[in-house]
Amino acid sequence: MAGSTLGKHFQITTWGESHGKGIGVVIDGCPAGIPLSEETIQAYLNRRKPGQTKYSTPRKENDIVTIQSGVFEGRTTGTPISLAIYNETQRSADYSEIAGYYRPGHADFTFDAKYGFRDYRGGGRSSGRETIGRVAAGAIAAALLKELGIEVFAFTKSIGPVRCAEDIFASITGNQPLCAAEGLKRALAARDASPLFMPDADLSLQAEDYLLATMKETDSAGGIIECIISGMPAGVGEPVFDKLDADLAKAIFSIGAVKGFEIGDGFQAAAAKGSENNDAFSGIRDGRAVKTSNHAGGILGGLSDGTDIVMRAAIKPTPSIYRSQQTIKRDGTPIDINIKGRHDPVIVPRAVVVVEAMAAITAADALLSNMSSRMDRIRVFYSK
Amino acid sequence: MAGSTLGKHFQITTWGESHGKGIGVVIDGCPAGIPLSEETIQAYLNRRKPGQTKYSTPRKENDIVTIQSGVFEGRTTGTPISLAIYNETQRSADYSEIAGYYRPGHADFTFDAKYGFRDYRGGGRSSGRETIGRVAAGAIAAALLKELGIEVFAFTKSIGPVRCAEDIFASITGNQPLCAAEGLKRALAARDASPLFMPDADLSLQAEDYLLATMKETDSAGGIIECIISGMPAGVGEPVFDKLDADLAKAIFSIGAVKGFEIGDGFQAAAAKGSENNDAFSGIRDGRAVKTSNHAGGILGGLSDGTDIVMRAAIKPTPSIYRSQQTIKRDGTPIDINIKGRHDPVIVPRAVVVVEAMAAITAADALLSNMSSRMDRIRVFYSK
Amino acid sequence: MAGSTLGKHFQITTWGESHGKGIGVVIDGCPAGIPLSEETIQAYLNRRKPGQTKYSTPRKENDIVTIQSGVFEGRTTGTPISLAIYNETQRSADYSEIAGYYRPGHADFTFDAKYGFRDYRGGGRSSGRETIGRVAAGAIAAALLKELGIEVFAFTKSIGPVRCAEDIFASITGNQPLCAAEGLKRALAARDASPLFMPDADLSLQAEDYLLATMKETDSAGGIIECIISGMPAGVGEPVFDKLDADLAKAIFSIGAVKGFEIGDGFQAAAAKGSENNDAFSGIRDGRAVKTSNHAGGILGGLSDGTDIVMRAAIKPTPSIYRSQQTIKRDGTPIDINIKGRHDPVIVPRAVVVVEAMAAITAADALLSNMSSRMDRIRVFYSK
Amino acid sequence: MAGSTLGKHFQITTWGESHGKGIGVVIDGCPAGIPLSEETIQAYLNRRKPGQTKYSTPRKENDIVTIQSGVFEGRTTGTPISLAIYNETQRSADYSEIAGYYRPGHADFTFDAKYGFRDYRGGGRSSGRETIGRVAAGAIAAALLKELGIEVFAFTKSIGPVRCAEDIFASITGNQPLCAAEGLKRALAARDASPLFMPDADLSLQAEDYLLATMKETDSAGGIIECIISGMPAGVGEPVFDKLDADLAKAIFSIGAVKGFEIGDGFQAAAAKGSENNDAFSGIRDGRAVKTSNHAGGILGGLSDGTDIVMRAAIKPTPSIYRSQQTIKRDGTPIDINIKGRHDPVIVPRAVVVVEAMAAITAADALLSNMSSRMDRIRVFYSK
Repeated sequence: MAGSTLGKHFQITTWGESHGKGIGVVIDGCPAGIPLSEETIQAYLNRRKPGQTKYSTPRKENDIVTIQSGVFEGRTTGTPISLAIYNETQRSADYSEIAGYYRPGHADFTFDAKYGFRDYRGGGRSSGRETIGRVAAGAIAAALLKELGIEVFAFTKSIGPVRCAEDIFASITGNQPLCAAEGLKRALAARDASPLFMPDADLSLQAEDYLLATMKETDSAGGIIECIISGMPAGVGEPVFDKLDADLAKAIFSIGAVKGFEIGDGFQAAAAKGSENNDAFSGIRDGRAVKTSNHAGGILGGLSDGTDIVMRAAIKPTPSIYRSQQTIKRDGTPIDINIKGRHDPVIVPRAVVVVEAMAAITAADALLSNMSSRMDRIRVFYSK
Repeated sequence: MAGSTLGKHFQITTWGESHGKGIGVVIDGCPAGIPLSEETIQAYLNRRKPGQTKYSTPRKENDIVTIQSGVFEGRTTGTPISLAIYNETQRSADYSEIAGYYRPGHADFTFDAKYGFRDYRGGGRSSGRETIGRVAAGAIAAALLKELGIEVFAFTKSIGPVRCAEDIFASITGNQPLCAAEGLKRALAARDASPLFMPDADLSLQAEDYLLATMKETDSAGGIIECIISGMPAGVGEPVFDKLDADLAKAIFSIGAVKGFEIGDGFQAAAAKGSENNDAFSGIRDGRAVKTSNHAGGILGGLSDGTDIVMRAAIKPTPSIYRSQQTIKRDGTPIDINIKGRHDPVIVPRAVVVVEAMAAITAADALLSNMSSRMDRIRVFYSK
Repeated sequence: MAGSTLGKHFQITTWGESHGKGIGVVIDGCPAGIPLSEETIQAYLNRRKPGQTKYSTPRKENDIVTIQSGVFEGRTTGTPISLAIYNETQRSADYSEIAGYYRPGHADFTFDAKYGFRDYRGGGRSSGRETIGRVAAGAIAAALLKELGIEVFAFTKSIGPVRCAEDIFASITGNQPLCAAEGLKRALAARDASPLFMPDADLSLQAEDYLLATMKETDSAGGIIECIISGMPAGVGEPVFDKLDADLAKAIFSIGAVKGFEIGDGFQAAAAKGSENNDAFSGIRDGRAVKTSNHAGGILGGLSDGTDIVMRAAIKPTPSIYRSQQTIKRDGTPIDINIKGRHDPVIVPRAVVVVEAMAAITAADALLSNMSSRMDRIRVFYSK
Repeated sequence: MAGSTLGKHFQITTWGESHGKGIGVVIDGCPAGIPLSEETIQAYLNRRKPGQTKYSTPRKENDIVTIQSGVFEGRTTGTPISLAIYNETQRSADYSEIAGYYRPGHADFTFDAKYGFRDYRGGGRSSGRETIGRVAAGAIAAALLKELGIEVFAFTKSIGPVRCAEDIFASITGNQPLCAAEGLKRALAARDASPLFMPDADLSLQAEDYLLATMKETDSAGGIIECIISGMPAGVGEPVFDKLDADLAKAIFSIGAVKGFEIGDGFQAAAAKGSENNDAFSGIRDGRAVKTSNHAGGILGGLSDGTDIVMRAAIKPTPSIYRSQQTIKRDGTPIDINIKGRHDPVIVPRAVVVVEAMAAITAADALLSNMSSRMDRIRVFYSK
């Protein structure tokens, strides 16, 4: 069944395999009138490009985007926006060997089980390159959100055992709201100073040491990405299934390698007491709640409360490692393999922008879905 | 926008508020020919009924289900199955006071922000009673899964700080597959011996002590629920957005009070190395993978690999606590409140069957969606 | 696969069989704050009740609606509205015979082919009683539209060969807009004076004569229903598949017995020339087009142009006729049958309100979907 | 809201404007293992190419398709198939004038009303070039259907007042089933001998005369397209809204210029009596009904009965005509215009393949959706 489409208003459909002609995405339902250029999208894609540090694959992928439809005279037209990123090289030679067996931790076995055969070149559709379409669409979602004063910001919370303080985000912004210029500037500065996008200089160095040691052991690492959506109006999300946190969970969990997701205090809330976990309301500002704490992560009853939405995603270590592993051939017989090629020892830093993109896409879709909740507002909307 | 419908093949639509006429669900797309009676559904509903132990609200709710359509001569007809559970009493008096302010940790503020006003009686649509429809539908999904030899089983993994061993499920089943009679029998026996559905007798007692102490402090507790789907064929799930883990994440996260979700090793995977986290394949049995470990929790690339699907949900402590709390009135002015009524000091035990239901609904929908993945199988299907 | 849900914003899910416990519908996504009572809905249901004239089945069906959720203190809450209409009698005896064979023109054979067996009592889910849920939901959609000054009005255009003049609607309203009080009053008066809802007194008498003759021959008749939506804003509809005319076509065609659908001049347009068929624009009023003619039926490029949306549906003659017919048993062997029971000699008059309901539901859904088309309007919406 | 996606299993998403970089479509949910090449798709696209006769625009559009994803080693992989047809020339100069006013019969006014501005070059997204994506996707749907022995065949039934006999299809096939080689061969031969795809040689000449006269008058013509789906299994379609006829109605009506749609006898059924309109069953063959007539057009209760599905679409005359027309500027002031450029005097012949494509897409989607209707078949499916 079709599964490559997400969203109802701001709806994205992605296509493309690792070693095919390219990767693309169609964004349908994007409102008309948003200024948009290829540069805006390219800036997002550049953040996930490999080869920028020694902690990512040295493969060269330029990933240049072209807008193929839906933009006229520099603005979105309201009709589908087609984006394509063509592959510059289509080397399949490196991968012919893996056609015959199933790599541990990869989707080789499950794709074969589902489809009867698979495009074995570089993981085909289950490759990390599939996220290019998500990031390109996320750039447009972020542009939409900016028009409403909403910012999305993700960063590396941990690499392996090296984890930032729980209040790291508050520290780097100095408690300035992200959707204010000063807060965003501080957050970007702290994050982008680190090759791992980990906004604590000391811990970033520790994480680099951990990664270098891991690479020396021909092993790989995982980590946690934290993401904040700031400036959301209150009341966004559609009970009881299309709640905002449920849709964020799905969007983030649909990224390959994600194994856990939490909102606010997340799993820590399970060990807390009610008196510790409840956030006291202290006022209302611009229709948004003011609270004395934010254990809830900005969501109550599945709807935004107007405070920062805080979420975290657990990313598993890269399954491709340069050491002998036990597995099976397509017929089920055992084989010992040594994966070749050039792989990321950790994908967390490159996945930061992917998480940011999926959060932005989900928030944009939820905001547009929310517009029909009240008859009084609909009447005003159509009276003009 | 409409948000009370979930799924595409096995599709559920729920309705009803805490203190309205009742709660119900329409299940559309359920295949024809499944034996179904009200007793089967009632057995599930009885598991979430309150008042069965001192750790749940002493409110009496019988929650008797009636099948209103879609079943003829004891079997599903393939047309919509409407289930209704009518409220026996509709006392609104207890709740009139809370109409004027926003309870911390509840959806009062966010529902008001979204809809302009709210049914304040007992939380209205955001009440835990909304889950009745989910559980009723889950009973039918479980019946469908049983026809295919698939079992879903959830239990209390932790209450506050009291947490079962990571391998508790393997211990209680003696490593017998859940979808074999012996494994299921053992699992049920261990779980249902505990009033908290915690399948470790000693820890269950410790958790009871913790709860009694918490109640004495007029406070509340949270916990973690673990759920296993056993017997799934390999290849189920629809890349790249409707992956099985992504849809499970959404379904589970749409339950009120869930703040975290993980598959397999989940957040622990983020700290592991690739060599530790990869599961080695050792064979194929009945089209399903055989692996030497299951850190992945039965899902690779978003598709089932045929081994046990293992997931956990973090449940926050009950927000209604019997002590003074700071909050605001609808106009934003501060007020100190004392919530009255009878509330669960912990909802984890009653939520066990809700998690099980949502997992079953998601698995059933994914299995039906998966049938169109291969032309060779479609040809065989239609050649008969 | 689930097929009993229609719409995305104003979304309806129907359930129930002819001779089950009842019929119902869940309306999800209805905006909060619309005044709603059971009386409003009952008035619509009463229009489709049988037994009001000699041209409908003498079966007595009171069809009393109850609102089961989603309305609080007389207004919609924004959460699902569950409506149920319970059957007062469940006589199955009359129908046991038809379990063994397939009635010509009915869905007996096709339901058996799809589901492997069927609820044979009175057609089960394929009975005309299924439309009760549509009409109940349509009453709410009409209430929503009224809040925006939009009116939907359907009437009998033809019965068998007796057909009203093409400009009958303009005649009865005296060219007063339907969404103005005077136009609606005149249209209702002309239509409701006829037992067949045919707003031309002379032709209505002719049609009655035709029906009486047809009944004497133990035969049945069909006809055409015309429906007007008046007061729509311009630009509603979602290219290129969810165009307003395409969604109206689907909604109307999903009514049992509909075999044709057209917008504006419809099939006559196929024989016209471009110079005859083009409607000249002469101005813009309140954002709506002013045109010198309306061959297009109010829709250009799949979007409303702000003028009256005009559509027609062809209704086949009732398949149940009181004469011997050739058919087959479930095993394929021939049999001659005589259908018993009490059936409508024509369903067109009772279907008028069903067409009106489906048009209202589609228009309501399209209006809510349309709100996210322009960034400038979204900015204004969220700036408050 | 997003509206450029159709279908749930065999799901298509189209993009592109008349004078943008190109036109494309993503087909998601196509089963794995169908042989597919660009030649197969190109053959369909060539059928809608202009410039092949004097009755279509002399514009040169080569419309060469490239497969960008989803096909590996000559077979579909089950993942999204992205097709792109790039525009060879992007001349916008011809159209700059029309930016300032609204062409009668076009979507200029309604697109402006919806989106606030529009891509005025050649109609932008509302151009007939948008159908290229539909035709390309239809070629794949037809390939899927062929694997199941199902054929779809459309032809010109009428041009202006020149209409083929009602039984023309039976005549040209000699009553051979279309899904048998002989029937298809005959049908193709009769249709493709006519430059208008009208399978009656004499009438085709008459229609040509009519068109030449119309062109001389600087006017344009419409017509009717008939389409047959042959070989469908019985029971396909999803009651009560996603009925097969309802989904066909929507799919066909979503084609620009369609103003009417009917199944079987269609509007003629409205004037018939029940005894004339009922089709008598005479047997069952391969699970499909055998009937003595087919007034129902192969659909009963919204489900296929296994006989030929017969439908017709009314196509309005081309709105672009080479004579002075009255209209308004964007500010509402009157203006007389003369449309320039090269336009089709009739689009019916070129639309034949578009109707065929939309019917094939709808049938493919319905067949895949239907697989989950019966538990007994699901059990067999998963037991392998």
